[in-house]
Amino acid sequence: MHAMAQAATEAVTGAARTAPATIGDSEFDRDTAVTLREEGVYDAELSAGWTIIHAVNGGYLLALIGRALGEALPHPDPFSVSAHYLTASVPGPAVIRTEVVRTGRTLSTGQASLLQYDENGDEVERIRVLATYGDLDALPDDVRTTALPPAMPGRDHCLGPSDGAPEIPGSSAITERLDIKLDPATVGWAIGAPSGKGEMRGWFGLADGRDPDALSLLLTVDALPPTSFELGLTGWTPTVELTTHIRCRPAPGPLRVAITTRNLAGGFLEEDAEVWDSADRLVAQSRQLAKAPRTA
Amino acid sequence: MHAMAQAATEAVTGAARTAPATIGDSEFDRDTAVTLREEGVYDAELSAGWTIIHAVNGGYLLALIGRALGEALPHPDPFSVSAHYLTASVPGPAVIRTEVVRTGRTLSTGQASLLQYDENGDEVERIRVLATYGDLDALPDDVRTTALPPAMPGRDHCLGPSDGAPEIPGSSAITERLDIKLDPATVGWAIGAPSGKGEMRGWFGLADGRDPDALSLLLTVDALPPTSFELGLTGWTPTVELTTHIRCRPAPGPLRVAITTRNLAGGFLEEDAEVWDSADRLVAQSRQLAKAPRTA
Repeated sequence: MHAMAQAATEAVTGAARTAPATIGDSEFDRDTAVTLREEGVYDAELSAGWTIIHAVNGGYLLALIGRALGEALPHPDPFSVSAHYLTASVPGPAVIRTEVVRTGRTLSTGQASLLQYDENGDEVERIRVLATYGDLDALPDDVRTTALPPAMPGRDHCLGPSDGAPEIPGSSAITERLDIKLDPATVGWAIGAPSGKGEMRGWFGLADGRDPDALSLLLTVDALPPTSFELGLTGWTPTVELTTHIRCRPAPGPLRVAITTRNLAGGFLEEDAEVWDSADRLVAQSRQLAKAPRTA
Repeated sequence: MHAMAQAATEAVTGAARTAPATIGDSEFDRDTAVTLREEGVYDAELSAGWTIIHAVNGGYLLALIGRALGEALPHPDPFSVSAHYLTASVPGPAVIRTEVVRTGRTLSTGQASLLQYDENGDEVERIRVLATYGDLDALPDDVRTTALPPAMPGRDHCLGPSDGAPEIPGSSAITERLDIKLDPATVGWAIGAPSGKGEMRGWFGLADGRDPDALSLLLTVDALPPTSFELGLTGWTPTVELTTHIRCRPAPGPLRVAITTRNLAGGFLEEDAEVWDSADRLVAQSRQLAKAPRTA
């Protein structure tokens, strides 16, 4: 059975799954749980459920770190999170060491390191993060924006794994936890006909039906296939740095994600993601610098 | 005498200024100098020459921190620099404390804090930075980009302070050190007729003629007036976070800078900057999250 179909089946057959999962009681919440060890230090277990090939997805890791920082800082919500990826994370135990850098009235800034253990039990740093937190509920309602939601077909006209169409080559466990439907205009790569444009668009949800919140947006910005696929490149695009701005608490319901790359050059590319919620609000913007695949 | 005209006059009258300044021997280089105090710790003097109103310009500070990190890390060039701004810097002594986070073959990652001193001599942190460095000269020449340089008039048809047109309200010393000519399409704010679009474009150079390099690009991305002026807002837009990607060593000659804002909402806005060199290469991309001015 196809992974996505299987996940959907499990979602409707399990007794505890007759209703959609909720914020606080979902796969995502359980797998991003952190346990206070001592002040500022949190233990976590990196779940094998969010891997692509063998590596743990960078957006999932960011959400987990974001959760720890939300506990360590006086403000609840990530406003700007800058992550520099150092070494590839693997499923298993991890520790997050946080530092409160500055506490202000409306914003506070923290730092976090995600570490795992080598064969000698020594800590190896995976990701270092600087983040500024605030309270999304305290923001005024003004919107003075020129941005429009991405032009893409409705969810029913987009393509998911169960449509027999695109699947990330070699990708694995994370597919079962996400409900992604890609814009047909950006899936040419799956049939050997990439568009040549640095664009990737799709509808995003969690497979168990949990609604989005500020933390899950940190996962959303790094969950679609890389734009390099549509630029005719296959292979891995490891993230060097990823900065995400959370601009609004997302409304319940599916999200739209549009990713663009303007500059694939010198062996690197940037990926800009915009995330729009069901109320047509631009709820997150991110940019990452990634290494371009070596193979054409 | 107008500040820009005065700077130009000084540039041609001083004996040492009959030729353009060079990389390594210029105002910018002298004012971003750092002195090793002990391993990883650098003393610096924040010059009053790069202030806007009373605050020291964030891009100038970033270049200074970038210089210290370039000395502390095994790789010379900033590839991705994420800065979270904590408190406003003032002219005078400062110290930069660096940490080598990870050293790799092609990339290394470091962290830096810029601190100044309060009335008791205690350190106060101004900016914290995470940065990944590499060697721009080691990158392959491939360019596979869909981006085009900004559509804007030639430098002679753009407007600088000596054209009697736009001057940043209350701005001061930094104007004398920069040679900025703005696209007439984005200076409506200066005559009370903002375009309503979140766009700002201009030609950028250093007033003493020094050519751009990777470090000066860190200044360039935060040097134009804020897009909020063209959105009809006046007043200060303090940077919360600024991440810059340096993608290519810039060719000699003037730079073009295009800044766009898509989302002014909830009291914050993002500013995306692209910097193009005289060889039509996209040499830097940056994004900042800033607080929107309170007044309309």
